[in-house]
Amino acid sequence: MAFQRVAVIGTGLIGASLGLALRRLPSPPKVMGFDLSRERAVRALRDKAVDRLAGSLEEAVADADLVLVSVPVRAMQRVFQELAPLVKPGVVVSDTGSTKREVLAWAEEHLPSGVAFVGGHPMAGRLSNGPSDAPYARFEQTVYCLTPSASAPPQAVEGVAKLVEAIGAVPYFLDPEEHDGLVAAVSHMPYVAASALMSSVASDPGWREMQVVAAGGFATATRLVEGEARIFADICLTNRRSIARHLTRLIEELERVRDEIERGDEGLAERFTRTQELRAAWLAGQAKS
Amino acid sequence: MAFQRVAVIGTGLIGASLGLALRRLPSPPKVMGFDLSRERAVRALRDKAVDRLAGSLEEAVADADLVLVSVPVRAMQRVFQELAPLVKPGVVVSDTGSTKREVLAWAEEHLPSGVAFVGGHPMAGRLSNGPSDAPYARFEQTVYCLTPSASAPPQAVEGVAKLVEAIGAVPYFLDPEEHDGLVAAVSHMPYVAASALMSSVASDPGWREMQVVAAGGFATATRLVEGEARIFADICLTNRRSIARHLTRLIEELERVRDEIERGDEGLAERFTRTQELRAAWLAGQAKS
Repeated sequence: MAFQRVAVIGTGLIGASLGLALRRLPSPPKVMGFDLSRERAVRALRDKAVDRLAGSLEEAVADADLVLVSVPVRAMQRVFQELAPLVKPGVVVSDTGSTKREVLAWAEEHLPSGVAFVGGHPMAGRLSNGPSDAPYARFEQTVYCLTPSASAPPQAVEGVAKLVEAIGAVPYFLDPEEHDGLVAAVSHMPYVAASALMSSVASDPGWREMQVVAAGGFATATRLVEGEARIFADICLTNRRSIARHLTRLIEELERVRDEIERGDEGLAERFTRTQELRAAWLAGQAKS
Repeated sequence: MAFQRVAVIGTGLIGASLGLALRRLPSPPKVMGFDLSRERAVRALRDKAVDRLAGSLEEAVADADLVLVSVPVRAMQRVFQELAPLVKPGVVVSDTGSTKREVLAWAEEHLPSGVAFVGGHPMAGRLSNGPSDAPYARFEQTVYCLTPSASAPPQAVEGVAKLVEAIGAVPYFLDPEEHDGLVAAVSHMPYVAASALMSSVASDPGWREMQVVAAGGFATATRLVEGEARIFADICLTNRRSIARHLTRLIEELERVRDEIERGDEGLAERFTRTQELRAAWLAGQAKS
């Protein structure tokens, strides 16, 4: 591990989970935590996700050789502005935001030269079936996207990649623009679709009775809306074009299947079998890797 | 329990689960099973979901006072045709199909007068988080829709309602047309939407890379496609108008939220909070009942 003193800025689910994973390493770095919410900060300390709490951003990053920023995407800009006068040359800054294009632009704009920015996005969601109230995310055998700034020196990038590997995750390097396109399809758009499904059904005049017959299938179909609203609003607002594009593709596919249903297409069983096979093939690939 | 000898026609997931629930009652009826698939039949016997297996439909229903038909919806018609000469007056026939309008029409058309038909639809899906490979469904505290034929005598209807209560479920009487409209919204359309989401994403040129970054969120969003393709095709083909109507409502909502995302609407966080609250209120209502 290239880093001895890590500052975790934002001790919500992902920030605290990273702190916990780092503190469980054989030779753990010292993890300093800071959060504007006293409650989140205290919980992180209680759960041993951080060694110590800082009273200010300045105190948090004073000795850090790695600063991990884990706040809602649109809060990154202000954190980078506030970090700018506090971080010394040689320090590496990374983040955990779910969109990367705008985050990289803010890092370039605000962080001083000499400070390396290596964007990160851990894909640490549990693969179905996990209890949704498990308190912390785990990183073993998960993909961890890395989008280094063009100006980040190789040793900074390598340092972050090694940290990712140390906690059991698999570094996956990609361009910020490409990252945002891919996750729009498999993460952001599905969240928006679940939210739209929920509001579409709940605004039906029959919703009162529908609630009685709704069961496990409806719970599964709408489960993603449990995600934090503010976090997903920030995601949507910083990845507008890609999410809109994938929503359009989904709408077009829904129109196609609706037409098949309306005309009583006997190919529906084959269509459903095909989508089932596509999902199974994806899951099988995940299990292998 | 009004019934002493129950014939379960079709020992797939729901048929076998019902057999199992009946056989676990304090004074269980004798449960005879029949399935065209030898494998499914033998599994039901092995798992004690039935007392005995019949070699033919005729043998299965010879002594039955209740015949529970649990086959894909569109296979009901042929089963009713074949049952017609085999069931004696006074026998009660019920089913477990996910759509009820066409099933009721087939029952009226084919079953002899003197044989009471009480349509049924157990909403026995698990409420999220359950292991998707749990071998049998449970009925405790689930809603069990009942759509009796207009000609079914009250004591037949009451007999089926008592059976439903005996296995711990809550009978919910409704008109077949109303039933099909409600479950289209909360069960059938969400399945179709999950399938369309899967095929829309998997047909994207970037699918190969998307598969690498897809994680728990995508698994959740597409999980419903695990449902049996043939069963859902039959459902779609016997509930076309209602499913198409709810797909249209979903498409319109997706267009609205896409517009909000495209224009960077600051109300998105509020929208997402609202759908989260709607879901939480529904789940809280479920827990209470």
